[in-house]
Amino acid sequence: MTKNGWSGVLPGLDRESIVPLYRQLYEHLREAILTGTLPESTRLPPERALSERLGVNRSTVVHAYRDLVNAGLIEQRVGSGSRVAPRVRLASDKGSGLPWWVTLPPWRVGEFPMVMGELAAKREPGRISFVQGISPDEPSPLGELAKSFSRVAKDPRFVLSYGDSEGYEPLREAIAQRARRAGAGRVDASNVVILTGSTQGIVVVAQSLAEPGDEIVVESPSYPGALQIFQMCGLRAIPIPTDEDGMRVDHVEAILRTRRPRFIYTMPSLHNPTNATMNMDRRERLVTLAKRAGVPIIEDDPYGPLLSPSLPPLVSLAPDHVVYLSTFSKTIAPSLRVGWLIAPRAVTERLLLRKQALDMATSLYVQAAICDYLDRGFDDHVVRLRAELVERRRIAQEAISKHWPAGFRVSKGEGGFYLWATTPREIRARALLDASERLGASFLFGEAFFATSGGDHHLRLALTAVRRSELPEGIRRIGQAARSLHT
Amino acid sequence: MTKNGWSGVLPGLDRESIVPLYRQLYEHLREAILTGTLPESTRLPPERALSERLGVNRSTVVHAYRDLVNAGLIEQRVGSGSRVAPRVRLASDKGSGLPWWVTLPPWRVGEFPMVMGELAAKREPGRISFVQGISPDEPSPLGELAKSFSRVAKDPRFVLSYGDSEGYEPLREAIAQRARRAGAGRVDASNVVILTGSTQGIVVVAQSLAEPGDEIVVESPSYPGALQIFQMCGLRAIPIPTDEDGMRVDHVEAILRTRRPRFIYTMPSLHNPTNATMNMDRRERLVTLAKRAGVPIIEDDPYGPLLSPSLPPLVSLAPDHVVYLSTFSKTIAPSLRVGWLIAPRAVTERLLLRKQALDMATSLYVQAAICDYLDRGFDDHVVRLRAELVERRRIAQEAISKHWPAGFRVSKGEGGFYLWATTPREIRARALLDASERLGASFLFGEAFFATSGGDHHLRLALTAVRRSELPEGIRRIGQAARSLHT
Repeated sequence: MTKNGWSGVLPGLDRESIVPLYRQLYEHLREAILTGTLPESTRLPPERALSERLGVNRSTVVHAYRDLVNAGLIEQRVGSGSRVAPRVRLASDKGSGLPWWVTLPPWRVGEFPMVMGELAAKREPGRISFVQGISPDEPSPLGELAKSFSRVAKDPRFVLSYGDSEGYEPLREAIAQRARRAGAGRVDASNVVILTGSTQGIVVVAQSLAEPGDEIVVESPSYPGALQIFQMCGLRAIPIPTDEDGMRVDHVEAILRTRRPRFIYTMPSLHNPTNATMNMDRRERLVTLAKRAGVPIIEDDPYGPLLSPSLPPLVSLAPDHVVYLSTFSKTIAPSLRVGWLIAPRAVTERLLLRKQALDMATSLYVQAAICDYLDRGFDDHVVRLRAELVERRRIAQEAISKHWPAGFRVSKGEGGFYLWATTPREIRARALLDASERLGASFLFGEAFFATSGGDHHLRLALTAVRRSELPEGIRRIGQAARSLHT
Repeated sequence: MTKNGWSGVLPGLDRESIVPLYRQLYEHLREAILTGTLPESTRLPPERALSERLGVNRSTVVHAYRDLVNAGLIEQRVGSGSRVAPRVRLASDKGSGLPWWVTLPPWRVGEFPMVMGELAAKREPGRISFVQGISPDEPSPLGELAKSFSRVAKDPRFVLSYGDSEGYEPLREAIAQRARRAGAGRVDASNVVILTGSTQGIVVVAQSLAEPGDEIVVESPSYPGALQIFQMCGLRAIPIPTDEDGMRVDHVEAILRTRRPRFIYTMPSLHNPTNATMNMDRRERLVTLAKRAGVPIIEDDPYGPLLSPSLPPLVSLAPDHVVYLSTFSKTIAPSLRVGWLIAPRAVTERLLLRKQALDMATSLYVQAAICDYLDRGFDDHVVRLRAELVERRRIAQEAISKHWPAGFRVSKGEGGFYLWATTPREIRARALLDASERLGASFLFGEAFFATSGGDHHLRLALTAVRRSELPEGIRRIGQAARSLHT
């Protein structure tokens, strides 16, 4: 159809990818147009013809073409089909040829799985959204926290200064002290670096302890934010299955017999999304394995402080083999954007320099306020929050027994933010989401939580994201949606 | 001296690097020891012998050996010299061989120029430190700012939520409105992404608009934080000289004739460190050149809002060819860690996804407080701040005329945070710093501001980092130090 023929232009679509097919097709055609592989006025294949050729639904092509029209890259006219728009309309500036962004490094399809949609999820009036992993509205830390904020807000030492890149010393001391109380005997402030949320710690680790192309071990499923970062850094994830007691450590052992991953990334307590907690036996075996193989463990522990009864974090079992990450986002408030890492002293300088290059230092004002709050309302708040999480799960379980059809399986585990469910074979999670949204409830479907493939029969409900009183109704709506798919 | 012989072990020291030679030597020997190239008990060459072999001062070797002793990697005994420490003391865990961090990806000497020492600079009692690029203590924004903080601190919408990754909509609106007021007619909120400080914007740009190995254009001298990020991202900097009217655009033109850098990084207003402001003629020529070549400009503008009389930012001359970065760190307070970027819509999604992967979202609480403050005290504060900067420079100039020996040259330019000085030929900036610190004054010496080499006769004084009343005395001490080096 062009002088190049279509064969070289037609994309190889990745059906395993969590990037929707229409988006893959769009990206591919967009690049072909912008780089001139498809010159202006080229006629694109009719939608039906292209969909047959690619072996996809016609709606996939329709959606891709629609987005190309919206981007001004193609034009559609009734009767004459779709054509590449004239060059002049593509150029941003008449003086030059193409806009400069056409020649940017290729933006690999799938590089960004668009999973962070969690943050971008639309709030629609009346919809009960179990999407965001935020703290419940009650109990609220705001009373005491606002007092801590106002105690530090007038102090120029805290507001008119960058502070140190490693963080506010008294806060690092307080964190080290709490780590020692949890059993990490040798940890002191010199092992602690304050971060702008624990997400930043994942970036720091991925960029400091591995190089593009290196293999790492992750859980399957795992936290999408981490998977996205590892992908961006060019790391290749070896997924390890999990069950109700957390990561299958026997699988890790098998992997370590023949491969040498750079690190093992795990969330052993109140896992996101499964809510599983690794039992004590596995914790000890994982640490022993990691020591023997000389492979460090990255322990991501945003929810650990909410675990009750508590289990010793991995870092307390082997402080020299674990880089520990946590945050105040789940125990106090996500808007603080303050987390921390605990690492063996031999690597803290390396990690610190990377953190420093990312954003110089974390807000000293917020750090100082948190430090103040730790001595005031924090511990009481965490006790109340734990009780709330247990109660919400009880309510959710009750509503599920009442409203969901047979065939669903639901993750166990006390407390925690998330409920992870497996749909019956005949219901795909994406279809359930569509049906649920029509009935006024939403959640995250499972694909985003898997490094390679899987998740099309899983869904995650953040039980904390809705009002407690809305929990039963939200769950009822999802159950109703499931029933509607049965018929 | 070992079975390998020393020749393969002796490092090639880089005399142009801003990494001190002793540190290069230390890093090199450390790696040789940890990887086993220098096995346990290997005797190291005597300090004098090694210094002659390498053609460095003996103190260079003494310092490197001292740090190796401190790190537990070598042992020194009077009479028998220096030996690699026994393996058992190197291992963190008796069960395994070496600690895991020994096998980490190599930490390239020079990767981190240690320049961020600005943040780590020790505050010694009695020392007048012109080091940190922070706002002056007076005028203080704290009165009104604290009120804005407390207005939002009790609102769960701002504290108990992540908000959107692109930032708080009303703040993005306010920023777009101010950009339009500065002449950027087509900018609206959809072009604005909120950042955790403008440093994060440099990371986002370096990782999104270029690939490792790509060339970019930077000013010489330039902001060390940016140079560090570019180096970390594997970008190769082409330095362009600057003068009192900013970047030498004629040199950019010459470069663009034969090379295709990914972007041009410039700080056109109140430049860090030179305080130069690019004149209008050069602004227009730079934009024309960049358009013609299809190379985008990264306009880093932390100080632009303090420029008086103001000049149009580059982004207002060519919104489609400029990614603009700025921050509230200099106009309000560094502890806020809130900056922003303005970019053509064709690249905002790409930049946003990278920002999101770095830290999810910038603190919504702080964003909301800033948004409140913008409508209250901000504009008045900036007016007072500008006047203070002008006054501080007048005081500094006066003290310099009075106290510094002939032969120093000092940068011009009204307002701004920094005074950039060139020492007389016979005085190196490092030596001046040593002498000044003994007399109780400190500053940053110039090497950190140059991508490749240069700066050994330059110093930067942050006129904002000290009390106004201390300015003359601090400058007098540096003058006294300079005189002491003359004799």
